[in-house]
Amino acid sequence: MIVLKYTLYGYNNIGVKLRMIYDCAVIGAGPAGLSAAINLAQTNRSVVVFTTKEEDSSIYRAPEVNNYLGFHGVSGKELLQAFYDHAKKMGIEIVHKKVINFYKSGDIFTINANNEFYEAYSVILAIGTPKKTLLENEAEFVGRGISYCAVCDGMLYKGRTIAVIGEAIEAEEEAEYLSELAKKLYYVPLYKKNEFHFKDNVEVILSRPKSVYGEDFVNALELEDRILNVDGIFIIRKTMPADQLIYGLEFTEDGHIKVDSKMQTSIEGLFAAGDCTGRPYQVAKAVGEGQIAGLSASTYVKMVKEKQK
Amino acid sequence: MIVLKYTLYGYNNIGVKLRMIYDCAVIGAGPAGLSAAINLAQTNRSVVVFTTKEEDSSIYRAPEVNNYLGFHGVSGKELLQAFYDHAKKMGIEIVHKKVINFYKSGDIFTINANNEFYEAYSVILAIGTPKKTLLENEAEFVGRGISYCAVCDGMLYKGRTIAVIGEAIEAEEEAEYLSELAKKLYYVPLYKKNEFHFKDNVEVILSRPKSVYGEDFVNALELEDRILNVDGIFIIRKTMPADQLIYGLEFTEDGHIKVDSKMQTSIEGLFAAGDCTGRPYQVAKAVGEGQIAGLSASTYVKMVKEKQK
Repeated sequence: MIVLKYTLYGYNNIGVKLRMIYDCAVIGAGPAGLSAAINLAQTNRSVVVFTTKEEDSSIYRAPEVNNYLGFHGVSGKELLQAFYDHAKKMGIEIVHKKVINFYKSGDIFTINANNEFYEAYSVILAIGTPKKTLLENEAEFVGRGISYCAVCDGMLYKGRTIAVIGEAIEAEEEAEYLSELAKKLYYVPLYKKNEFHFKDNVEVILSRPKSVYGEDFVNALELEDRILNVDGIFIIRKTMPADQLIYGLEFTEDGHIKVDSKMQTSIEGLFAAGDCTGRPYQVAKAVGEGQIAGLSASTYVKMVKEKQK
Repeated sequence: MIVLKYTLYGYNNIGVKLRMIYDCAVIGAGPAGLSAAINLAQTNRSVVVFTTKEEDSSIYRAPEVNNYLGFHGVSGKELLQAFYDHAKKMGIEIVHKKVINFYKSGDIFTINANNEFYEAYSVILAIGTPKKTLLENEAEFVGRGISYCAVCDGMLYKGRTIAVIGEAIEAEEEAEYLSELAKKLYYVPLYKKNEFHFKDNVEVILSRPKSVYGEDFVNALELEDRILNVDGIFIIRKTMPADQLIYGLEFTEDGHIKVDSKMQTSIEGLFAAGDCTGRPYQVAKAVGEGQIAGLSASTYVKMVKEKQK
């Protein structure tokens, strides 16, 4: 079900399409991600930033921020707006897609952004406060009945029974798409809402999901008050938990992404910045780390390209 | 020659003077120091910031800064002004004195700011890019003929022959003061200037200082082209080298102050942030580290005060 869609930037003189490989892909467009992006741009690197929605940054809801030096008495929304204005002035490319996962092959990272594929020499994770997997046993069944992307895996469940767990209202769109493929769909919202308008084959279940069961493959979802027999479970979150994004990423004991003083993770060419690397969960810390990650990625990319010559 | 001048903040009900102990003393008023200060104020801690001159921050001379998120196309001077405005709005106390050194006794740090003494439960070093000692053997002779403070040690050299090495034009004022005490004073400017107006007992030497000689005590200053027999050498710098500020501070191999992820140095209650902890020498990195150091100091002070109850 995977279609490779390379971002193209032109043709060479014999008409062969040239593939665009970004110097860096930044996942997340909060303070850390945007700071990384402007620092990459400042050092003349090509950069793409992925975000589902700008408003997803936790700073967006802060009524007043007084401790980001240079801005006093602003709302989180105003501060984020100033950050976006800055990124815009520097021509930063922002792609509104959710990154499902990515992998590294040779020196190139391939990023699956809602089933469109991008390539980059380096990646910066700026994905905000750590999110744990939702269900007991969830990690064990990834790719064996647990999916995070309707577009990517929906066709695998054509004519079958599935559950869709929606973290936020945006998940309903993916549920609607899946309801056209599935025979029966249980929709489990994790947010509060009174009325749902789905097709007849959708049943809304207002109960907290707990665990997943199966043998080789998922066969049941356990909720607080019942067990649903299903062939697959889609968990639709605003952002993916870091441990599901890429294989081999190391974490600290308290569940943050492990980085060194250059913001380099356990995977070469992969950097992290902001809340995902540890406390305090604060704007200035995130912006500072974003800068270090951006400059480190910039240096790393230079090294990789020189190696390729 | 040391006179203790405690900052006083009032009298208790039997008329005994109460001593003000700051929660934190921040040394340096560049991006890192100011960020630390506003974060301390934000968590309701008393804080004092020491700086010789605001313009000493290396960012002041930057013609354009584009990579501190939220400000685009500003000069270093404008950015620093915005930082000062922020600090002012939060009522940060800034003291225009050079910190000569400080020490820790029990839980209290005592800070010598040009021979006036301040006390604090914690200290944050935000002193900018690392400065090395100037002369060969300099560290060896500190307190034995090498001095960094005219007001502190001038009287020790009454009627004697001294050299004064001035890093910047401000040093001339201290040289003038010392020329009234000394029999003979050699003034060695490290900056460019054509005319000097000193008393008759002052000889200006335009030669690069290299090394210091002596047995128990300093007896000569070696310059590129001559050797001066002196009883003491005053080195008047804008900021002190970190290794002369406090005993026991650990450094990384490349000469930066060693800190952990909380910006804690090798001395409990002493934190560091900004250029002095390592590269990149950039505003956002400094502001981010300042925030972490400020919040860490805040937590530390709470712990110390609870212990004292």
